Amino acid sequence: MDKKLLAVAGGTEPADVVIKNGQIVNVYTGEIYEGGVAICDQTIAAVGDVEYCIGEGTKIIDAGGKYITPGFIDGHIHPESSDLAIRPFAEGVLKHGTTSIMTDLHEVGVVSGIEGIEAVLAENEITDLNLYFVVPSHVPFSPALETSAGQFNPEIIRKALQREDAVGISECVGPYILADYPDLMESLDDVAGMKGMTAQGHLVDMKGAALNKCVAAGVSTCHEALSPEEIMDRARVGCYAMLRESSAARTLAQQLTAIVGTDIDTSMMSIVTDDLHCCDLAETGHLDHHLKLALGCGLPFVKAIQMVTINAARAFELTNIGALAPGKRADINLVEGDTADTFAVKDVFSRGKQVVENGELLVHYPVAEHNPCLLNTTKLLNPITPDSFKITAPEGAKKVKVTCMDTLPWIPITQPREVELEVEDGYVKCDLEQDVLYIAQVERYGINGNVGKAFMGGFHLNSGAVASSVGHDNHNIIVMGTNFEDMAVAVNRLIEIGGGQILVDGGEIIKEIAYPVCGLLSDLSVEELAAEKAELNAACAARGCIIGIPMMFLSFICLAALPTLAITDHGFINVLTMQVEDPIKEVIE
Amino acid sequence: MDKKLLAVAGGTEPADVVIKNGQIVNVYTGEIYEGGVAICDQTIAAVGDVEYCIGEGTKIIDAGGKYITPGFIDGHIHPESSDLAIRPFAEGVLKHGTTSIMTDLHEVGVVSGIEGIEAVLAENEITDLNLYFVVPSHVPFSPALETSAGQFNPEIIRKALQREDAVGISECVGPYILADYPDLMESLDDVAGMKGMTAQGHLVDMKGAALNKCVAAGVSTCHEALSPEEIMDRARVGCYAMLRESSAARTLAQQLTAIVGTDIDTSMMSIVTDDLHCCDLAETGHLDHHLKLALGCGLPFVKAIQMVTINAARAFELTNIGALAPGKRADINLVEGDTADTFAVKDVFSRGKQVVENGELLVHYPVAEHNPCLLNTTKLLNPITPDSFKITAPEGAKKVKVTCMDTLPWIPITQPREVELEVEDGYVKCDLEQDVLYIAQVERYGINGNVGKAFMGGFHLNSGAVASSVGHDNHNIIVMGTNFEDMAVAVNRLIEIGGGQILVDGGEIIKEIAYPVCGLLSDLSVEELAAEKAELNAACAARGCIIGIPMMFLSFICLAALPTLAITDHGFINVLTMQVEDPIKEVIE
Repeated sequence: MDKKLLAVAGGTEPADVVIKNGQIVNVYTGEIYEGGVAICDQTIAAVGDVEYCIGEGTKIIDAGGKYITPGFIDGHIHPESSDLAIRPFAEGVLKHGTTSIMTDLHEVGVVSGIEGIEAVLAENEITDLNLYFVVPSHVPFSPALETSAGQFNPEIIRKALQREDAVGISECVGPYILADYPDLMESLDDVAGMKGMTAQGHLVDMKGAALNKCVAAGVSTCHEALSPEEIMDRARVGCYAMLRESSAARTLAQQLTAIVGTDIDTSMMSIVTDDLHCCDLAETGHLDHHLKLALGCGLPFVKAIQMVTINAARAFELTNIGALAPGKRADINLVEGDTADTFAVKDVFSRGKQVVENGELLVHYPVAEHNPCLLNTTKLLNPITPDSFKITAPEGAKKVKVTCMDTLPWIPITQPREVELEVEDGYVKCDLEQDVLYIAQVERYGINGNVGKAFMGGFHLNSGAVASSVGHDNHNIIVMGTNFEDMAVAVNRLIEIGGGQILVDGGEIIKEIAYPVCGLLSDLSVEELAAEKAELNAACAARGCIIGIPMMFLSFICLAALPTLAITDHGFINVLTMQVEDPIKEVIE
Repeated sequence: MDKKLLAVAGGTEPADVVIKNGQIVNVYTGEIYEGGVAICDQTIAAVGDVEYCIGEGTKIIDAGGKYITPGFIDGHIHPESSDLAIRPFAEGVLKHGTTSIMTDLHEVGVVSGIEGIEAVLAENEITDLNLYFVVPSHVPFSPALETSAGQFNPEIIRKALQREDAVGISECVGPYILADYPDLMESLDDVAGMKGMTAQGHLVDMKGAALNKCVAAGVSTCHEALSPEEIMDRARVGCYAMLRESSAARTLAQQLTAIVGTDIDTSMMSIVTDDLHCCDLAETGHLDHHLKLALGCGLPFVKAIQMVTINAARAFELTNIGALAPGKRADINLVEGDTADTFAVKDVFSRGKQVVENGELLVHYPVAEHNPCLLNTTKLLNPITPDSFKITAPEGAKKVKVTCMDTLPWIPITQPREVELEVEDGYVKCDLEQDVLYIAQVERYGINGNVGKAFMGGFHLNSGAVASSVGHDNHNIIVMGTNFEDMAVAVNRLIEIGGGQILVDGGEIIKEIAYPVCGLLSDLSVEELAAEKAELNAACAARGCIIGIPMMFLSFICLAALPTLAITDHGFINVLTMQVEDPIKEVIE
């Protein structure tokens, strides 16, 4: 029992901090009324009329009529998608009022296993961002279709669930549940047997009996609904519906049409980002941006705030965050404005400590001394040369019909396109006229030397090659190019620097960004990295690329679980059949 | 993992039972729509379109357009207040759609300790009522002011919290928290350290700093709000507000004025009964009656249903009840009508088993073979005679001024009244003209032979004496009468039969009801006991008593925690000062 807290709440000792003269946004009752918050150390002692908590030594903060809300919670985010190491990531999101995230650090796990994840969790300990660990339910995503360094099994998961910060398991994949995949079912059983643990679903396209089975198996959240109907389907069966607006999939506005203007109970709904590009974080923000978007769509202010606070907390059965009340952690935002145009997070308190004042970040965390398990993660089993990327045509063929995979321009979902390509020296040639590029994924852990190869469309890059050591869900090196030479230079350079992202043209490195942590993360600040990324993206755009964030799109092109086609180190993947396919379909000449 | 459940949900095996052609009341989204529920054994497999679950051997139930709701949950009830043993109690409430209750069995604990409570929990196991055990946070209520047989300490509580059915601790008393009462603080600490455990508050009259301190200490529910303002005060600080309509305190309609006609979020509010008289249960029902009352007050239908289902489940952090969804326990009601006049629970399923069909109970549980610790609990240390009840006047006094405690007619809350009484043979006489009766409480566990004595008003009994071995919070024998002889006969008879309730007049037993279980509970059915109680109450009314349920009122007159005065075996209690007082204030002649 925190005796000082009880004394402050009871009025017999003064509070450390009192925020007064605000408008309480009460996420329990949906009311807004005048009042303040009294803080004792890391905890809220009183809310409402808190004058009685002011005494000798109390720091008084005048909210000046601003709204007082709970700190925001992102119930599903992969910080690695920002390409920021956890400390600069924490700075980046705290600035925008996010005080808690639920994350699986899956990407780190793919590269460095549970040891790597625990090292990153340890790095975060000095920050003011509250990190709840949702243990990856499986690493990698598709064990039969890709190579990863990290490998999870039910035993590792069971042990991780014992951590103080663990809140459940993440990314339980619908089709694996439908197939009664034994490891996943074992982990779901473990979670069902532990109080306060939840199973996060990754239920793409699930409905009816399929959705019912996943929920019956214990899945209680899902962030993969795309349409308003899918949002309602999930909420109706007691599966917390996470409305997602990610940098790669902007679906919030459409999803909100399910509820705006209705009297539907929104307590089962929250707003999440899933994947947040560092340029978006730098330029538009985090959940504060999403709230502006939601307000612009007509979502009432209090309901919007509930969707990034108490609803998210309830989805994880957490009772000590997401609301302003005695005994809750003092995660508090002062907010100006309640419309899409005026909404702005001005001051942020995390665990009672002010980290943002009038929009300015008050904290800066030193670059972490990374655990060795997070460093030097790129290794080739065999040398990579231009020849490594060549796709051999059938003997004697001069022209072949191949399946090129095209990305949609607004979401990295792929579609097949049949194209005819010339053969030269026994190898199938790309064709810039038809927007057909070479794409490959190079195994980078020194395990088997795999190189998977295929053809890619939709980017319209017209010169050089890009490569990245960020590639879901295995983080081998994905490389896409107009010629084999630049592709080889790009991959070898990334191996040399321990991972990152790169554009090579005419044998020259045009732009590179190093990701020393797991080949995934940079120690730059969000602003610095955003500037670097902007330069890289601009250099791609200058070479015809029409995808604004090509590296993020590429990172999903290797996801063997995202319809309909993919490239992994195993080869060209038909996601629907879960088989490796030959991209060459027939010989034409 | 329940493989059959997953197969039924997934559509590869047929359901055991399918309820079709109903109107789903979706407590998650607040919607009502056509659909059904598929059941596999004790669990819901699918909700909504469940045609796909019908196969060979599926029992099909046509809901005939009735509403399908989750089974009702009473988040705070003392079954002992019905004077029914747990099995007939279960029959009584199941008939009205209540499938789960949260209870501390505190009264049994007072008489027979944790051993007695566990024996009653064991008796309940054969019934279809789901009983969640909220471990009493202290027994007795006021250790310094009353004698009980059962005694609880933090060690006993800690052990009980390990039970599978435990959900927290009950009745955490506001003033004890304000006073940092060590045993209670220790138990609150234990609860805070256990996931999924909650602390139920008993926060009479708490507001401002006092309420904040109780909530900061971990109290997360309260059923003691009386006014609409107190309901809002609690909800606003994250303390689940339980709107109470008990047989002894009918405050629901008034409390509902806080929310009816507003857009206040009601997710923090539920409806509970606390103390339900068996005549009320027999004549008007349980939560079904309360729902009719709430609908009559203008509460929207779905919000009303939420207040006896999901809101109550959330208050206890329970995720497997309170809603219709795959994987939830198959506790289901079919309901006709959605207005105060038409609402009626017609069919009830508990854990997938139909227990009520078209309003008729399908189950009957045999009388339990009670554990010996529950039986023969009445024992006197010294004989009781008429002299036992005499209050000695100061030497030589002929007339004295005394404080008589009067009950309010609608709630057993007591107020002081100064009266002048004659002295005869050295003893103060009662005075029927002024409605001043003798009242006493006789210690009945053979521990110390205490007899506490005082004067009582408000009942207007004009002949004979009534006695009862049900008396909060110690369950000694409370006896009230117009003469010492009838009082002695009444007490001695209750000792002889092991407890119960009795009316004696002119030395004759006019009516008695035996409570063999702990001196608190009868094995009669709800209808039988209600008939007996009606006869007893009528016999009291025939003797001028204006309190319709005199025995229930008497049971609260001995509650040393209920303002402002009380009688216990220790004597006449000033509840505000927590002191034993002399009822005689001064000598007049």
